[in-house]
Amino acid sequence: MRKYVSPSLLIIFFILSAAGHYAHWPATLQFIISAVAVIFVAGFLGKATESVAHYAGQRLGGFLNATFGNAAELIIGILLVREGLFDMVKASITGSIIGNLLLVLGLSLFAGGLKHKIQRYNISLAGMNGSLMIVAIIALFVPAIFLQTHVLHEEDRTALSLVVAGILIASYLLWLVFSMITHKDYLADVTEAGKGADNGAAAETDSIALATAGGSHELPPAWSKGKSITYLVLATVMVAFVSEWLVGTLDTFTERFGLSEIFVGAFVVAIVGNAAEHSAAILLAMKNKIGASVEIAVGSSLQIALFVAPVLIFVSHLFGRPMDIVFTVIELAAIGVSVFIAKSITQDGQTNWYEGLLLIAVYAILGVSFYLV
Amino acid sequence: MRKYVSPSLLIIFFILSAAGHYAHWPATLQFIISAVAVIFVAGFLGKATESVAHYAGQRLGGFLNATFGNAAELIIGILLVREGLFDMVKASITGSIIGNLLLVLGLSLFAGGLKHKIQRYNISLAGMNGSLMIVAIIALFVPAIFLQTHVLHEEDRTALSLVVAGILIASYLLWLVFSMITHKDYLADVTEAGKGADNGAAAETDSIALATAGGSHELPPAWSKGKSITYLVLATVMVAFVSEWLVGTLDTFTERFGLSEIFVGAFVVAIVGNAAEHSAAILLAMKNKIGASVEIAVGSSLQIALFVAPVLIFVSHLFGRPMDIVFTVIELAAIGVSVFIAKSITQDGQTNWYEGLLLIAVYAILGVSFYLV
Amino acid sequence: MRKYVSPSLLIIFFILSAAGHYAHWPATLQFIISAVAVIFVAGFLGKATESVAHYAGQRLGGFLNATFGNAAELIIGILLVREGLFDMVKASITGSIIGNLLLVLGLSLFAGGLKHKIQRYNISLAGMNGSLMIVAIIALFVPAIFLQTHVLHEEDRTALSLVVAGILIASYLLWLVFSMITHKDYLADVTEAGKGADNGAAAETDSIALATAGGSHELPPAWSKGKSITYLVLATVMVAFVSEWLVGTLDTFTERFGLSEIFVGAFVVAIVGNAAEHSAAILLAMKNKIGASVEIAVGSSLQIALFVAPVLIFVSHLFGRPMDIVFTVIELAAIGVSVFIAKSITQDGQTNWYEGLLLIAVYAILGVSFYLV
Repeated sequence: MRKYVSPSLLIIFFILSAAGHYAHWPATLQFIISAVAVIFVAGFLGKATESVAHYAGQRLGGFLNATFGNAAELIIGILLVREGLFDMVKASITGSIIGNLLLVLGLSLFAGGLKHKIQRYNISLAGMNGSLMIVAIIALFVPAIFLQTHVLHEEDRTALSLVVAGILIASYLLWLVFSMITHKDYLADVTEAGKGADNGAAAETDSIALATAGGSHELPPAWSKGKSITYLVLATVMVAFVSEWLVGTLDTFTERFGLSEIFVGAFVVAIVGNAAEHSAAILLAMKNKIGASVEIAVGSSLQIALFVAPVLIFVSHLFGRPMDIVFTVIELAAIGVSVFIAKSITQDGQTNWYEGLLLIAVYAILGVSFYLV
Repeated sequence: MRKYVSPSLLIIFFILSAAGHYAHWPATLQFIISAVAVIFVAGFLGKATESVAHYAGQRLGGFLNATFGNAAELIIGILLVREGLFDMVKASITGSIIGNLLLVLGLSLFAGGLKHKIQRYNISLAGMNGSLMIVAIIALFVPAIFLQTHVLHEEDRTALSLVVAGILIASYLLWLVFSMITHKDYLADVTEAGKGADNGAAAETDSIALATAGGSHELPPAWSKGKSITYLVLATVMVAFVSEWLVGTLDTFTERFGLSEIFVGAFVVAIVGNAAEHSAAILLAMKNKIGASVEIAVGSSLQIALFVAPVLIFVSHLFGRPMDIVFTVIELAAIGVSVFIAKSITQDGQTNWYEGLLLIAVYAILGVSFYLV
Repeated sequence: MRKYVSPSLLIIFFILSAAGHYAHWPATLQFIISAVAVIFVAGFLGKATESVAHYAGQRLGGFLNATFGNAAELIIGILLVREGLFDMVKASITGSIIGNLLLVLGLSLFAGGLKHKIQRYNISLAGMNGSLMIVAIIALFVPAIFLQTHVLHEEDRTALSLVVAGILIASYLLWLVFSMITHKDYLADVTEAGKGADNGAAAETDSIALATAGGSHELPPAWSKGKSITYLVLATVMVAFVSEWLVGTLDTFTERFGLSEIFVGAFVVAIVGNAAEHSAAILLAMKNKIGASVEIAVGSSLQIALFVAPVLIFVSHLFGRPMDIVFTVIELAAIGVSVFIAKSITQDGQTNWYEGLLLIAVYAILGVSFYLV
């Protein structure tokens, strides 16, 4: 990851990629250009996020990054729902969740852990994240098991999906109230622990925070607050476009190499579509801002599960083609095992390179399984 | 929840409710009177529990409350077993477990959390509770999975149920030895932590305990120790009676509104039958005695799973109509997800309003699913 | 467990057991002699392990013990694979994992907990162990669920098994790098905590370590470092031989008492084959070296799941009879519940007698279920 992204190369590859997409250049050429463009815009996004995080604190910065990152996924999801491609939507939701929880988080922990022996972040946030993940998997698992053991009328099936989706959206909005307003300091980053005096967990990590702060001697970011935010929005939009252009070239590959739709949806789309989160999270982890990395990776998958997925269900009703909340058995299994290993690894608020590697190992097991099916 | 329960209103509504039940008044009238009576007797029970807890300590008080609360459930269970209504028994056991773990605990954490930012209780107790919950779900899950994949003779099926039930009862009795005798101080309430000097976990929470103790300036309870215990027993008996009278009116509603037996067993009966635990646990949580709240909610569901349910299996053999330990898939799923989310939320020994809300969200998802089936 | 093992009795019973095996004495006589011999050699192994642990530290000592203990299992496994007895191999792998996680760990915690109120060990190691267990169960669960819901070509089935096995072996080897090299002090025993100054978790347990060290006044071991290691190797080899001779007598019992192969594989073989781990782990727990006990029990089951089992899959290809990684539903259920309860109990780094008892209770439930099937 270069520290300085060349603005001219960024713009050139972005325009080339757009030209390739709209002028229908050969798929292989489109693919190569878009892939290079993704690397540049993702680098740009990473730098903008880092700059915003400097002003906003690690967690808010991470949240902003996750949200902008998922805006692209939401838009792509709406387009797929409009065309009735429900299996592809669910595969890509599955892929986004496991991609963030296993690959993004895994690479962040691994890269950060190679540079820093032990990385710590707020243990209360780790616990809350774990509980939210459990709620997300319960919300997907309960309708599936009830519908597999009992026959329901079509309207009851729809009602069940809508109610569960509504509960998830309400839970997510209240989570924002909790984490951003009522308990902001309780979940504060370790490096800001000194501020949160009435917080037992924060006090405990105080000495670490001082040590970290003393060791890093960060330079002020190159951009002002306003410029950083503008660039963050701009970079996110660019990532969304380039990702979509890149995804557009994948159909050809799917056919040419005989890959299944579920594998492409759950792995290729998820890896490419989350390039922004990838680069930002890994960059922050290597700078020992593991709290922001976790916020991006875990926060992003929670946002997909608790907000993007249920919103798509409501959107499908607006289009008059109701999509239910029932995922396939292997999608549920993939999300379930991802949640369990991610929860086990994040819950102590301490990370190291080997924990990152374990997440990648589980991702590899799932990848091979989806590939062979 | 009023601080002072009017004794005359309490007695009047109790007698009216009894009259309505035995004189067979119209079901709707019976229902309204009994529902009001439940509120009064539950308030009375809450006050008595609080008073006993003052003398006995939070945990013993919570245990007494859970036991008296479950006495009612045990009696109702025995009556249902005698009539061979095994499905209703299992649905109501399921409902009691998830009702306590999700609704009672959820409302307690929510109400307590709105008043107090972070509430803490003994983390060692949280860990032990979590392990006991896992054992309970294993004891229900293992026979179910073995019997679903293999065909067993009737006598082997019976033997399996009895052996597992025996192991659970033995585990529960030894848990009482552990928690009340050999490791009483290890699991002591946070506010009593100063006493348990040889305990690392207690020492850690010491300063919190002092802060809490300094802040509350509790008035001595209105009743003497003896009077408090007498009132606790009396209130529990009254709750048991009024709950049963109220449940008696529900059959009519089940038919009139077309509700399934499993929904009524698992939700309506469980909510009404646990009114006592509800009111006591919430009242204590609002007074920042979250340790006692958790003891009531979690302790009560553990008592149902590890003691009441296996005892009912043995009782069924006394009646000559053996009931096995095999629950339905959706009952197992409901208990399983309840245990996972409750364990995830309670395991750090810290609670807040949002955690209560997550428990209620899961309860709502299960409620809708059971309602639609 | 005697403190001093009589060398002459040890040698006599070892030779008698060998004679009985190779001269084909009556099965019952062979069984009795071998069982007595196992007790003596296991005692010898326990003493050698303890002596090596004194020189090497608890964790390395525990690791050595687990490795030597599993060498026997690996050899027996290879013999069974060569004869194509795949069901027996998988049953015995299942039995080894649950036997170590539930019986060995359970008895250690119980025996240690009766003598010492609360026993503590490194909480970071507890967390890593838990995550590794989760990865092990995921690696067994994912292929099973994918193959149950989808039909795969024979070559894809083989590829999936080999890839997953390769990932597990790589994860295990890197775990050795992590735990023995890069993060050795991070996972250090509680009693060595004073040495690991840059480690937060270690610092926290410092006072406990001093208290423990002050209280025990250990005598120096009877053997030198070199002699201890030689005896450890010798004792392990003897245990391996005697275990196999004992196992050889079990066929007769299986037929005579009508036990199923899966029960014999998962329980009888596992208990006898792990006699060495049993005695060493319990002995160390009673001497308050609970860290070494956990390392033996949990480390041994991790070694079986992450190393022995996948190596056997590769070995089966060398013999030209490919064994897949797909376990039966009840084997997966047994391993799954064992991992969940063991993780729940070990994750706080504190143990007591009741936690040991809960593990034994789950082992008993599984034992009865396997016996009746």
